[in-house]
Amino acid sequence: MVQRVAVIGAGPSGLTSIKCCLDEMLEPTCFESSNDIGGLWRFKETPEPGKANIYQSVVINSSKEMMSYSDFPPPAELPNNMHHSEVMLYLRLYAQEFQLMQHIRFQTTVVSVRQRADFAVTGQWDVDTESAAGQRETHIFDAVLVCSGHYTQPHLPLSDFAGIESFKGRYFHSWEYRNSKGLEGKRVLVIGTGNSGSDIAVDISRVAERVYLSTRRGAWVIGRVGPGGLPGDIVWSSRMQSMMRNLFPNWSTRAVENKLNEAFDHKLYGLKPKHSFWAQIPIVNDDLAGRIIAGRVQVKPNVKEFLGTSVVFADGSIINEVDTVIFATGYNYSFPFLPPKIQTNCGYRLRLYKHIFPPSLTRPTLAVVGFIHGFGAVNPLAEMQARWATRVFKELVELPSEEIMLKEIEKDSEIMHQSYVCSERNPLQVDYLPYMDSLAEKVGVKPNVLKLLLRDPKLALEVFLGPCTPYQYRLSGPGQWTGARQAILTQWQRVTQPFRTRVVPEPESRTARGLRSLAALTGAALLVCLFFYQHGSVSFSWPFSFIH
Amino acid sequence: MVQRVAVIGAGPSGLTSIKCCLDEMLEPTCFESSNDIGGLWRFKETPEPGKANIYQSVVINSSKEMMSYSDFPPPAELPNNMHHSEVMLYLRLYAQEFQLMQHIRFQTTVVSVRQRADFAVTGQWDVDTESAAGQRETHIFDAVLVCSGHYTQPHLPLSDFAGIESFKGRYFHSWEYRNSKGLEGKRVLVIGTGNSGSDIAVDISRVAERVYLSTRRGAWVIGRVGPGGLPGDIVWSSRMQSMMRNLFPNWSTRAVENKLNEAFDHKLYGLKPKHSFWAQIPIVNDDLAGRIIAGRVQVKPNVKEFLGTSVVFADGSIINEVDTVIFATGYNYSFPFLPPKIQTNCGYRLRLYKHIFPPSLTRPTLAVVGFIHGFGAVNPLAEMQARWATRVFKELVELPSEEIMLKEIEKDSEIMHQSYVCSERNPLQVDYLPYMDSLAEKVGVKPNVLKLLLRDPKLALEVFLGPCTPYQYRLSGPGQWTGARQAILTQWQRVTQPFRTRVVPEPESRTARGLRSLAALTGAALLVCLFFYQHGSVSFSWPFSFIH
Repeated sequence: MVQRVAVIGAGPSGLTSIKCCLDEMLEPTCFESSNDIGGLWRFKETPEPGKANIYQSVVINSSKEMMSYSDFPPPAELPNNMHHSEVMLYLRLYAQEFQLMQHIRFQTTVVSVRQRADFAVTGQWDVDTESAAGQRETHIFDAVLVCSGHYTQPHLPLSDFAGIESFKGRYFHSWEYRNSKGLEGKRVLVIGTGNSGSDIAVDISRVAERVYLSTRRGAWVIGRVGPGGLPGDIVWSSRMQSMMRNLFPNWSTRAVENKLNEAFDHKLYGLKPKHSFWAQIPIVNDDLAGRIIAGRVQVKPNVKEFLGTSVVFADGSIINEVDTVIFATGYNYSFPFLPPKIQTNCGYRLRLYKHIFPPSLTRPTLAVVGFIHGFGAVNPLAEMQARWATRVFKELVELPSEEIMLKEIEKDSEIMHQSYVCSERNPLQVDYLPYMDSLAEKVGVKPNVLKLLLRDPKLALEVFLGPCTPYQYRLSGPGQWTGARQAILTQWQRVTQPFRTRVVPEPESRTARGLRSLAALTGAALLVCLFFYQHGSVSFSWPFSFIH
Repeated sequence: MVQRVAVIGAGPSGLTSIKCCLDEMLEPTCFESSNDIGGLWRFKETPEPGKANIYQSVVINSSKEMMSYSDFPPPAELPNNMHHSEVMLYLRLYAQEFQLMQHIRFQTTVVSVRQRADFAVTGQWDVDTESAAGQRETHIFDAVLVCSGHYTQPHLPLSDFAGIESFKGRYFHSWEYRNSKGLEGKRVLVIGTGNSGSDIAVDISRVAERVYLSTRRGAWVIGRVGPGGLPGDIVWSSRMQSMMRNLFPNWSTRAVENKLNEAFDHKLYGLKPKHSFWAQIPIVNDDLAGRIIAGRVQVKPNVKEFLGTSVVFADGSIINEVDTVIFATGYNYSFPFLPPKIQTNCGYRLRLYKHIFPPSLTRPTLAVVGFIHGFGAVNPLAEMQARWATRVFKELVELPSEEIMLKEIEKDSEIMHQSYVCSERNPLQVDYLPYMDSLAEKVGVKPNVLKLLLRDPKLALEVFLGPCTPYQYRLSGPGQWTGARQAILTQWQRVTQPFRTRVVPEPESRTARGLRSLAALTGAALLVCLFFYQHGSVSFSWPFSFIH
């Protein structure tokens, strides 16, 4: 029987893994190589090799209600899209609330994780660690949760860039970027239009002479600021919308793309990708278009070659006197401490069942948590993975046979390769809601909207038509949380609260007009439904009812 | 007969004034106190007292086709919303094209402008100047064009802020702001939500710990990026739209406000003003909403008082540990070198006929140029003023009697006070198109759309339905420019050209879809008309026809 669990890393995935272990009465020991929690979100003045890094101005792409852990709604006063310092605050509050800190051994690096000789019987692992002082230890664990993250090993594909050795300026990977200091008045080329590349380009464009943003494929750009100024991800994430997307995939894709082109024509702006909106995680950026129209950021095609201080692009155009090149070219993925035989690939993806379990293990006592990308934050994804994994460890939930798992991995990989622009740099993509639901089903916590409709129609409608916030997975089943219902019914209050820094008074008579103007923004049929329900059923859950 | 004209200042208004003098065969001498042209747009590393100033990241609010001089379209490759360095480039090109530099005496300050004893007969002026070396001179001029600008004297209303003397941090006027250096990690309060205040708040928010933006009245916020990513001012500035606005003022105001609330609900964001959209020049900012949703900028009400390092607001809320306060509280207006008797006020406004002529002068040989605010750039406004003024100087156009002028000033002031949120800080507002047309009528260059429709329907439709670019005032009458027609018919090319830094290829079959998606964004009836006309009549004037 599994009792002692090693958790590797105390980032967002590690923290929730500790919590899930405790919920299942397991004994977690978390090894964290640094001296603090937070992982990626722990801002480091200088980048530390082997660790994930962020730059000073980073604001999280997901809004707070969508990035929260399922039984820990963020404080109402925190902004919807938090600065990294506020994400850290949230993580600290989470750790404090559930007393996670006492289970973490800081400044302790996991060097290797090995199956013990009697693994087939015990499922146990030898975990070798090394302290900052150099002290090595070997621990025996019944199970291992690998939460070591995936922005740790910058991918710098210099060999793909002819003439880079002749480049006279400075170049570095986006992983090293801290802020725009030193780039004042410079001509900077940023290669790659992932979220880092675009964000860094915008950041630098406020001080640089010119920023060029080179993109191979182009990208769709969405804003944190969604319709009516509500967080975009909360407006577009309901189960109803997900259902419509499945029923009418072409229509839904066109609708989204048209909407984005209304904000700015992606073709006019040189950003239009060949792939459809759902085929790759979009850029989340509210100011990129503004920087492009002002010429502060110029979109360029793929780099053909470097020549001294000049850069030649695929279309033959040349820019001269480039001072700095930033490679926002993504990350490599590997787990140096894990046995190679559980790190085989399937296409570009790691051969992990549901991105979590190596299928070849005779006993399922090792799980990877948070090694995933979705159109949503990693926190709830990692939490759901950890909930499942700990229940598998406890033998409360069974995994299918190796054969079935392998087949499913093949099938999933195929679907993903078909649906998504897959590459070595981008192997971790999942469809957020279907993936969450598929795990939730295994854990036994997937909300049953129809049943709920009979028991608690108000809640059921909010679950179906409102944003699919993580609290939905705490309404019933193992790990049920009595606060979940209230958390769902008050989520719009927490969305609007941080805006209430200057309350605009308005005579009663104008309320109707205000609501009309808001109704206008619902434009799409899906949102009209949402509006109708929320406005009609519960006054306090309608996001605007108490601010008008 | 007027021959020699003194032009005071070589900023955007002064440059076009020199040009207009030359066009009317007058002899301009421009006195510029600094060593370069550009005025406001000449970036100064440190602010120079008595001069207009800008900060490093400034990008012009108006798009290039709307801020151009009427016979000098900006180069196609310049971005739509230019950085100050590019505005300077445009001004230099203008000065070069029309050989203006030889008429400018740099480092020469005008100390006083006095009517000569025989003014009643000659209309002449004594102009006293002082060179940088301290050399004084008195010149006799037949006429004077005052182009000294209006962002030169920062208004720092400390007495309105109780307890400011107890404030322990640093404070300064936005006029002094250069960039965010030194504000890293600080808590900054910006007072005032004009364009400077909002822009500076956004700029600082990328490095500061937190920025608070205090607003007394709130403000409407528009983007440089308009529908479909086209420059907002070019999309919303047609004669047709102006006509609709006059015919259906309430409907038009509601339509604009609803549109802006769709981008973000101004009430939710604490920015909603009591005044309607047209009552005050809006904030032009593409990133303010993004900074607010991320909590990096917090909107606050009016400041009640300062207490040490704390600030108390009108709603009783308090922020502590404020490091820096930036007063973006506008400017004072005066012309220290002009005789006081021609600087009397009418309400908050200076008593100037059409914002240009002091009505009390027995001979109309002094005109103020560019002392004005409109929902549009100052360049074309100043140019039209100078065209009129120089023709008045030449006695080709007559001014009404003093009595009539005074009455009209009263009437105009009354209308403006009714329509606009008028204050001491904001006395210069005009309705852009009606004002331009009213002057154009006097000069004899107002386009007659109906006549044009018979002669040149393609052009007429673009003049009526397309953006009201300044070239329209060069189609006929004095100062007619043969290039005007072509400039109008190619204006969309110059709008789209700077975006063509990465051309997205697309199969023919998708063109229709692209156009459909663009058509969707026209939503409002006005734009549908514009679309219909442009798409139907001239393929190359439809802004997207050549990029799809």
